[in-house]
Amino acid sequence: MMPPRSLGRSIIRRALKEDIGPGDITTQNLIPEGETGRGFIIAKEPLVVAGLEVAGEVFRFLDRGMQIACACKDGDRADAGDTLLTLAGDMRAMLMAERTALNLLQRLSGIASHVQALVGQIAESPVRLVDTRKTTPGLRALEKYAVRVGGAGNHRFGLFDGVLIKDNHIAACGGIATAVERARRAVSHLVKIEVEVTSARQVQEALEAGADVIMLDNMTTDAVRNAVTQIAGRVPVEVSGGINADNLTALCRTGVDIISMGALTHSAPSVDISMQIGK
Amino acid sequence: MMPPRSLGRSIIRRALKEDIGPGDITTQNLIPEGETGRGFIIAKEPLVVAGLEVAGEVFRFLDRGMQIACACKDGDRADAGDTLLTLAGDMRAMLMAERTALNLLQRLSGIASHVQALVGQIAESPVRLVDTRKTTPGLRALEKYAVRVGGAGNHRFGLFDGVLIKDNHIAACGGIATAVERARRAVSHLVKIEVEVTSARQVQEALEAGADVIMLDNMTTDAVRNAVTQIAGRVPVEVSGGINADNLTALCRTGVDIISMGALTHSAPSVDISMQIGK
Amino acid sequence: MMPPRSLGRSIIRRALKEDIGPGDITTQNLIPEGETGRGFIIAKEPLVVAGLEVAGEVFRFLDRGMQIACACKDGDRADAGDTLLTLAGDMRAMLMAERTALNLLQRLSGIASHVQALVGQIAESPVRLVDTRKTTPGLRALEKYAVRVGGAGNHRFGLFDGVLIKDNHIAACGGIATAVERARRAVSHLVKIEVEVTSARQVQEALEAGADVIMLDNMTTDAVRNAVTQIAGRVPVEVSGGINADNLTALCRTGVDIISMGALTHSAPSVDISMQIGK
Amino acid sequence: MMPPRSLGRSIIRRALKEDIGPGDITTQNLIPEGETGRGFIIAKEPLVVAGLEVAGEVFRFLDRGMQIACACKDGDRADAGDTLLTLAGDMRAMLMAERTALNLLQRLSGIASHVQALVGQIAESPVRLVDTRKTTPGLRALEKYAVRVGGAGNHRFGLFDGVLIKDNHIAACGGIATAVERARRAVSHLVKIEVEVTSARQVQEALEAGADVIMLDNMTTDAVRNAVTQIAGRVPVEVSGGINADNLTALCRTGVDIISMGALTHSAPSVDISMQIGK
Amino acid sequence: MMPPRSLGRSIIRRALKEDIGPGDITTQNLIPEGETGRGFIIAKEPLVVAGLEVAGEVFRFLDRGMQIACACKDGDRADAGDTLLTLAGDMRAMLMAERTALNLLQRLSGIASHVQALVGQIAESPVRLVDTRKTTPGLRALEKYAVRVGGAGNHRFGLFDGVLIKDNHIAACGGIATAVERARRAVSHLVKIEVEVTSARQVQEALEAGADVIMLDNMTTDAVRNAVTQIAGRVPVEVSGGINADNLTALCRTGVDIISMGALTHSAPSVDISMQIGK
Amino acid sequence: MMPPRSLGRSIIRRALKEDIGPGDITTQNLIPEGETGRGFIIAKEPLVVAGLEVAGEVFRFLDRGMQIACACKDGDRADAGDTLLTLAGDMRAMLMAERTALNLLQRLSGIASHVQALVGQIAESPVRLVDTRKTTPGLRALEKYAVRVGGAGNHRFGLFDGVLIKDNHIAACGGIATAVERARRAVSHLVKIEVEVTSARQVQEALEAGADVIMLDNMTTDAVRNAVTQIAGRVPVEVSGGINADNLTALCRTGVDIISMGALTHSAPSVDISMQIGK
Repeated sequence: MMPPRSLGRSIIRRALKEDIGPGDITTQNLIPEGETGRGFIIAKEPLVVAGLEVAGEVFRFLDRGMQIACACKDGDRADAGDTLLTLAGDMRAMLMAERTALNLLQRLSGIASHVQALVGQIAESPVRLVDTRKTTPGLRALEKYAVRVGGAGNHRFGLFDGVLIKDNHIAACGGIATAVERARRAVSHLVKIEVEVTSARQVQEALEAGADVIMLDNMTTDAVRNAVTQIAGRVPVEVSGGINADNLTALCRTGVDIISMGALTHSAPSVDISMQIGK
Repeated sequence: MMPPRSLGRSIIRRALKEDIGPGDITTQNLIPEGETGRGFIIAKEPLVVAGLEVAGEVFRFLDRGMQIACACKDGDRADAGDTLLTLAGDMRAMLMAERTALNLLQRLSGIASHVQALVGQIAESPVRLVDTRKTTPGLRALEKYAVRVGGAGNHRFGLFDGVLIKDNHIAACGGIATAVERARRAVSHLVKIEVEVTSARQVQEALEAGADVIMLDNMTTDAVRNAVTQIAGRVPVEVSGGINADNLTALCRTGVDIISMGALTHSAPSVDISMQIGK
Repeated sequence: MMPPRSLGRSIIRRALKEDIGPGDITTQNLIPEGETGRGFIIAKEPLVVAGLEVAGEVFRFLDRGMQIACACKDGDRADAGDTLLTLAGDMRAMLMAERTALNLLQRLSGIASHVQALVGQIAESPVRLVDTRKTTPGLRALEKYAVRVGGAGNHRFGLFDGVLIKDNHIAACGGIATAVERARRAVSHLVKIEVEVTSARQVQEALEAGADVIMLDNMTTDAVRNAVTQIAGRVPVEVSGGINADNLTALCRTGVDIISMGALTHSAPSVDISMQIGK
Repeated sequence: MMPPRSLGRSIIRRALKEDIGPGDITTQNLIPEGETGRGFIIAKEPLVVAGLEVAGEVFRFLDRGMQIACACKDGDRADAGDTLLTLAGDMRAMLMAERTALNLLQRLSGIASHVQALVGQIAESPVRLVDTRKTTPGLRALEKYAVRVGGAGNHRFGLFDGVLIKDNHIAACGGIATAVERARRAVSHLVKIEVEVTSARQVQEALEAGADVIMLDNMTTDAVRNAVTQIAGRVPVEVSGGINADNLTALCRTGVDIISMGALTHSAPSVDISMQIGK
Repeated sequence: MMPPRSLGRSIIRRALKEDIGPGDITTQNLIPEGETGRGFIIAKEPLVVAGLEVAGEVFRFLDRGMQIACACKDGDRADAGDTLLTLAGDMRAMLMAERTALNLLQRLSGIASHVQALVGQIAESPVRLVDTRKTTPGLRALEKYAVRVGGAGNHRFGLFDGVLIKDNHIAACGGIATAVERARRAVSHLVKIEVEVTSARQVQEALEAGADVIMLDNMTTDAVRNAVTQIAGRVPVEVSGGINADNLTALCRTGVDIISMGALTHSAPSVDISMQIGK
Repeated sequence: MMPPRSLGRSIIRRALKEDIGPGDITTQNLIPEGETGRGFIIAKEPLVVAGLEVAGEVFRFLDRGMQIACACKDGDRADAGDTLLTLAGDMRAMLMAERTALNLLQRLSGIASHVQALVGQIAESPVRLVDTRKTTPGLRALEKYAVRVGGAGNHRFGLFDGVLIKDNHIAACGGIATAVERARRAVSHLVKIEVEVTSARQVQEALEAGADVIMLDNMTTDAVRNAVTQIAGRVPVEVSGGINADNLTALCRTGVDIISMGALTHSAPSVDISMQIGK
């Protein structure tokens, strides 16, 4: 899910301004105006592609007539040496957009690759693996898109599209029951209410309060298993906190419905992608 | 080097808008207006701190009167459990700014921690380790600041503050000599001209053309050593491309002056930092 | 639910720019710089107050030190002649902000007054009366806030925080079952899926597809009653389309859970509020 | 009078961002990318059309190639069932722009319809009926355009294009004479100076001070008639304040030149317009 | 006439961003954070001061607590060596704002000085000397303010606050009469209509059409004198085009009411103002 | 060096908004929509052309299909009467863009003409004449481009792309040696360090500190000559401060390498260029 292209151009504009500023003093002084060329964006290691469209938009931002042909599509696997995108157009635009386009493509493909590996690890399980709000400031829409390209799901997009009641909210309301009730009265009937709990007692309170989803926060695998038994399918159960490749499989076997993992986005290493330019 | 606070607020504004959008439907409906509290930002693993000021600014953006006390300063090492920042102010602001502030702090401290480890690995060497333009779109100024907090140096901030002549520029000009001459005529006398080369012959051409710095691109350690001998101290020598923790030390011993490494920023994992909120 | 003040200032800035442009050629030429005065914002007809805070912010935008005292609070009823807000500060700021502040206050209080009357009409009923997305472009957050001040609830804030499957979506998917399934897979587990139906057959399909909410679109009161019987409490039922003060009460008696009404926002007349300024 | 299309796109951008935010989670997940269709914008009640161009621009904002054919033009009367606009293009764009386009079109046509009725009521009279600055914040240019489509005229666009001296300005200057003189010295020779008066004595002062226009504020019909006699055609006379459909005709007979009425814009109800989408 | 400070900060923000970009690599690296100092802005040649407030705002933009004392006020004459403004505050802010503040102050004072000299040249005459729209893009409000500080008047602020009918408008309407009539019908009753003419015949047409002001465009002094006789005081007369210090006095004696001169703003040389900084 | 067209449109947008605001009340009311015409931009005095592309962009901003043919190119000399640019397209767009386009073209061509005269004066000399940061706030990129069109060079674009150590920096560091060393450690290896000096002793310190360039500030011609002898070619020498057409030639003979002159931009008078519009 990304905003439509016409609404999402500000990320590209800002990124190009950040890099080009008052001008590319190498390219604009050395490459004659109007010179054209061809470019090839190439994977340098095995990866899952994500971000082809936004990468292409970066080039088109500087040369509206840039011709772009995708050799594959988001979600495809590529090997080292595979061409992802070919470009034909203004040489200056190509050189000036190169770094910005690659920075986006490397990060998004890095996330998709990282996610796909984790999804593959639990492929047998019905559990839904989802991201969190631990994304790069300014790039959330793109990073959440890459998570889906990699095969996982999205949690909330922000503080505006889902209620997640945490300890401080509970404390301020004097209890889970009041908190859920206040939220229910205030929000749209299309929004679910999730309560974060840390004990069997809180699980019980959340169930009685009518929570739509229960999140088990930073619990041991055993505690998670017990909570799942206690909830007994009445509402979906999410676990969150301290999850990594090592404990992911075990958690899947506890019977939870959803696992959310910040590392999907905040610690995915960039993958290596480069650009060859020629006449 | 960051733009002054008054010029740099747009990153924070955008990040908060992205997360809060039309409103935090949990906090604004459950926490009474005007309620105050205290917050503690705490390291959950050993790390090098970077970004305390910008994290504080995120909270101040939502509550101008938020009181913020730093328990340490950027560049300090912290252990799991150490408090980095304490806050006192509006409870709603604290909860609504939390994720955005942590996202920035975790990423910047992640970079500083990653950089410091690499700098430590080559502490004996006079080589200058520097970053590249492979930064997160929109966050370059912050990430380059974190690199310096970690003890490494900065390469160009963008395409505007240094000339770096690459193969396509050379091709378009018909040779290194013309390229350097065109650049020299065009740019300010405060800007140096660096030429990227891949062979001994190009090294020779760059030296004759009067390049201020020579960058050896993706060469083997042996080829680097030979080039250093060939250049013989006439201009500073930079190596770039394919550098990682494994070959870093060996490259330092070749006699180069500068090593640039994209991984300083593009693949530093986030470090774990959390926030405790209470009355 | 409104974005926090620090994020929401752009509506005020734009509104003031629109009115003041390159300068207030009357006030800035006739009122000496630094002259101070007092202002009183007064209801000229019975109304429900909404927007006091945003009105105050308009004045503070032009004079950061403007002293503002609310004589009542949002949601209160006021009679003709009642003072709503008193101001003390820079005279120029007061005169230049007056129209913009009143325009906002009159519209928001107009909505709150209109809504409260309708809510009162069905006070005995358990039905939840909610707004729609038929709001003034640019003012949705404020208008939806005024709806809540008037005692009704909010439907979706936008296309991003709830799934509402309409006929074109159903057609594109080849049926309600596929549409609901695609949506379920794609969206966050905190978002509910509502299906708009126009026949008993579609009601059945929506129920079988696992819709979370069913919207009866533009049905007669009899058809609504039948649909409610058919749904039998399995999911909440919303009616929408062609609802006005005349048929509202009858619809409430059909057993539906939610009634959404565009007229809450798009046709609420402004209420009369004026400002007296003096030394 | 509207700013040219290329300068006026920010209203549309903001309105679409407000509605779509990080994405339309129904349409973007259910409608295949690239699917095309046709749309018909249809009047649901008798109305005067206003805003066809801006409505079309909303669709073009999301699909630059959207084909738009107007079945009528601004100012035309339409009956229930009449098609106003037909569209052919990207289905996603059509569904995502629908609400924003209709919200603008319904409001602007609402104003034009309301204005035309009032203008018709006084069609025999030479009086010029004009709007005020009581417009929706952010939409003034569009609303003032709709007023003209409806057949009335525009008063000032803002505080920058006309001098209107009110009681506080007079008080600050110590009298009408000084106020007019200060204004005359300060403003461009293309700007007229209007003085708001509430008594025969002030009428006399305004005439002696050389006011270009006199505004009678909130006077009874008799007082207006007397003031018109007193002014005797020396300058144009405007009445303002408390004017509605009931007293409009009587006021026209007093001999005034201009009647300004806030209700033209601030209380015009939206008209009902909907969109049919199909393949 | 300038927009209020809170609306006008974008000029300052843009100017500072243009100069500082990603950071001041001299000051931020050499001056310790938190160091304070004092600054003195000093005239280096005789001049008329204009822009003290905006210059002060530039410093306050970077250090909100900067203490600023004006040693004189806009419109005062200063001699070489006179202190105009003293500052005390953050040393980094002072050094980073210096150039931007001076650039504005030198330009605005340059205009005021240039204007005052020309106004002095025709001090005996009742003619009103005014500027044009030939201002620096982006700085019109400030430059028109400086014109008034220098003692001349302002013509239109833009295309929005006065009608000026030129040859192309006349041609498109088929004559002056139609053009004036169309304009009269379309614009607010507070806006005057000026017609640009180049012949006695056009003067006659403009008078008959009811123009409020007549502009004689690029006429010889003799032709101007004849036109003044022809118009005979019925409407104000403006001359424009090709006016400079040499023919200004003679034109004043022709009996015209208004002389507009682009050179007031577009060719005023900067005056020399510098800043001394110390502890 | 200018930012690419797609990044640089904000200057044009702001300039047009400033001039057109809510609408051109003459053109939009008098010229029928869709009317087309031709325009000719013509030099009214001998000049060096600069800014043809940006002038064309102003027209294209209002009419994307405007056809523009350049009769010459930037850097060409034109005589009074020469056509610079011909346009064919929407008549309204042409009239509404005219003033903004000319304002830019007159200023940029004014700078280029002024610069070319000065460059011609020292044509025999190897000295490099460069501009300063004394440019019009908001227009620096364009003005620095015009300087190059006129044949001179550019100094720093801002505070971000070159180190220039002045007296206050030296004082804060306790000496030139420390200042240069701190800067060297902090900045990219592509940035040179220039030190501003006022005495022979400071020249010596700067040489010993390893400055890359030495700037002689406001020295007499004799002192400059002595400093050049003292520096003896070890680093490039720049002179700045108080330079004008009268002392420029003498300074060139002192043996300095670079002369920087604020007057290139801040005091270049506008040249006279006008537009003829016809069918």
